[in-house]
Amino acid sequence: MNTLDATHDPSARSWLASANVAGGAFPLQNLPFGVFRRAHTAQAYRGGVAIGDQIIDLKALAEARLFSEEAAHGVIAGSQSSLNALMQLGPKTWRALRRSLFEGLTRGSALEPKLRECLVPQHEASYALPALIGDYTDFYISVYHATAIGKLFRPDNPLLPNYKWIPIGYHGRSSSIGVSGQSFPRPRGQKSAAAGAAAPIVGTSARLDYELEMGIFIGAGNAPGTAISMETADDHIFGMCLLNDWSARDLQAWEYQPLGPFLAKNFATTISPWVVTLQALAPFRVPFARPAGDPEPLPYLDSRQNREAGAIDIRLEALIQTSRMQARGEPPQRLSTTSFRHAYWTISQLVAHHTVNGCNLRPGDLLGSGTQSGPTPEEAGSLVELSLGGTRKLKIGSDEHRTFLEDGDIVIFRGWCERPGAVSIGFGDVRGQVLAASQ
Amino acid sequence: MNTLDATHDPSARSWLASANVAGGAFPLQNLPFGVFRRAHTAQAYRGGVAIGDQIIDLKALAEARLFSEEAAHGVIAGSQSSLNALMQLGPKTWRALRRSLFEGLTRGSALEPKLRECLVPQHEASYALPALIGDYTDFYISVYHATAIGKLFRPDNPLLPNYKWIPIGYHGRSSSIGVSGQSFPRPRGQKSAAAGAAAPIVGTSARLDYELEMGIFIGAGNAPGTAISMETADDHIFGMCLLNDWSARDLQAWEYQPLGPFLAKNFATTISPWVVTLQALAPFRVPFARPAGDPEPLPYLDSRQNREAGAIDIRLEALIQTSRMQARGEPPQRLSTTSFRHAYWTISQLVAHHTVNGCNLRPGDLLGSGTQSGPTPEEAGSLVELSLGGTRKLKIGSDEHRTFLEDGDIVIFRGWCERPGAVSIGFGDVRGQVLAASQ
Repeated sequence: MNTLDATHDPSARSWLASANVAGGAFPLQNLPFGVFRRAHTAQAYRGGVAIGDQIIDLKALAEARLFSEEAAHGVIAGSQSSLNALMQLGPKTWRALRRSLFEGLTRGSALEPKLRECLVPQHEASYALPALIGDYTDFYISVYHATAIGKLFRPDNPLLPNYKWIPIGYHGRSSSIGVSGQSFPRPRGQKSAAAGAAAPIVGTSARLDYELEMGIFIGAGNAPGTAISMETADDHIFGMCLLNDWSARDLQAWEYQPLGPFLAKNFATTISPWVVTLQALAPFRVPFARPAGDPEPLPYLDSRQNREAGAIDIRLEALIQTSRMQARGEPPQRLSTTSFRHAYWTISQLVAHHTVNGCNLRPGDLLGSGTQSGPTPEEAGSLVELSLGGTRKLKIGSDEHRTFLEDGDIVIFRGWCERPGAVSIGFGDVRGQVLAASQ
Repeated sequence: MNTLDATHDPSARSWLASANVAGGAFPLQNLPFGVFRRAHTAQAYRGGVAIGDQIIDLKALAEARLFSEEAAHGVIAGSQSSLNALMQLGPKTWRALRRSLFEGLTRGSALEPKLRECLVPQHEASYALPALIGDYTDFYISVYHATAIGKLFRPDNPLLPNYKWIPIGYHGRSSSIGVSGQSFPRPRGQKSAAAGAAAPIVGTSARLDYELEMGIFIGAGNAPGTAISMETADDHIFGMCLLNDWSARDLQAWEYQPLGPFLAKNFATTISPWVVTLQALAPFRVPFARPAGDPEPLPYLDSRQNREAGAIDIRLEALIQTSRMQARGEPPQRLSTTSFRHAYWTISQLVAHHTVNGCNLRPGDLLGSGTQSGPTPEEAGSLVELSLGGTRKLKIGSDEHRTFLEDGDIVIFRGWCERPGAVSIGFGDVRGQVLAASQ
């Protein structure tokens, strides 16, 4: 369980001035993990921790031997080219490392001079995926999204009977997951031809979309044939990131029955470089509750802790910057905002459900939350919802419109947590760009 | 393209007597790859090549430096604890290595004494997965299976309109793939309650099944955003194995809409230890043809080579050995036989379709063919088909019956290729056992 401790003290300040800027993403109370190297060098990738506008280089920190015992184990594991080893070590190590980093970075720490030597400016870094992702599972836990998208694919039957009982999920593709900055050519594939035509057509997707999701990185896994209980599920989660599940709606509509989406999704998935730990998210947990009249979760998906603090209030924002806006130097335009607190299932429930049959999770496995759409249509987390299935044009900038994405479009998600009495923390952003189709 | 050459010479014989036994799985003309070590030792796993009742230890062969140039590269890559590096090297290396192994193992070779020092008896070996499997995709390419299973899930609508246009596939779970010998507790999960009940029930699967499939290992992959053409698809395939896609039909029926099977499949998947290369399969290629009246494949799924020799005649057999049969020393009983030649799509078409949208495949990725059921009901590759959805009991042994699998049951698949004028080759077998559910 993730309770509040000294590392959440809202009055604590860092000796690093950029960490104390009000509303900054990476204050002392956040300390998210990522994998980076100095850009334009042949340096090996290594783990790092964001603080203000800097990164603590865990490889340098390991060599400096500033921490001891459990925290030192964490630093050594985190200094590798992926965070899987650190993820595997489990919450005792994560907490010890967090506490040592927090104390060392706090104003007045005697470690300041040596920790300063481990800093790399974020603007000099390039990022890699935080982990080698063995398996990627994508869920579907916004009831608002499921209802809206269900109406488009099955107008007579939008929300299937299992939805309120099962955290619906399916396996996604690991190979095409990229870190923020990923670009990809518009995908090709089969699509339904005009009504009445005998054969489908093959061409580039004309209904390319984003999906505003959260990613959940698994820490310590479970042995095959064992299940993870609701009571211990959070201890198996390392942290969370932002995730864009790019989707080709026309490919999806034609291919998805009976075994689910495939080529409509597996050409690219983009995640943010920084993984915000569950410890950092602890102040932003909120009760999990079902709308009146909805069934209570089955016992294997229920716990007191989950009812009291299973959900997380993570504010989310999707933005677009078209080629024209890029050329004109115009900033990205907001498409929608919502919060992860509206999800129909909690992250603990995803882990408990995934393993109830004995399926083994491994450190570095990634779960996607599915598109996060809020209760109102304006809070939708995809264009297919915002454009009412492509029937309504959205006005973009001064002189453009979109129903779906066009070549050159950059999509950006941002995430942050805020509440009175706590220091706000951020996820940074995740961005990706659609390129013209390959020949 | 895989044409016949000297390594397919049906008159060639090995200096190793066990390789020349008529009807043996591993003659000189086969030379499948696997990963093994001497059982009950702490030896590192390493690549090996099956020959007769022995294995050529590629780590020992690398140290002996018997081969040169391209073949030597292959040996060194194959001596690691997984075959991914060898898979990545591509068909030029695979062919060179095959030729050197073939020549060295042929009767009269001067290398005989040194190669003999690299032999390990198969009965002294334990096996690991042939590769680190990054992504596992499962297809659904038996039209007979799709029709039969479709009737059970959607009586009014068994074969969906996309089936004859798209090689339907979905992403599976890598973490729970095990090598032959895998056992797993009966999975638990949500199932529909009796008709009219408000809530589903949670319990162990009562409709546990096997699925008789082929596995296809990807060799050299493709860059993100590029597609693999039908003309070059076979060059991206390292080889094939047997695959058991264990399935919990009751979990599947309740969970599979709208995103496909998930917990019904991801608790275990078992593959055979030996990967038979496409070179070894070359003599058993047969024309690919569609039943009269069915649509021709779209251009991106069509090639002359595919029409002439896209299919492969691999004979398949499923057997069961219950606890009682094991205790009595009774041999496994055959449940059905079929051939992979009945598949509605070819392995080249799977690769071309998977990448048409720019999805990147990586060396060691595994494709499953989906259940292989032949044209007649007796050739069905699963119990749900053989038992007509659990309504007909199959007689097993002298005094048992099955509709679905019971605790203790061992399921065994065998595969082999034979035709006049060619030396028969085998896949060996894949076996797995159902254990009682965990508490």
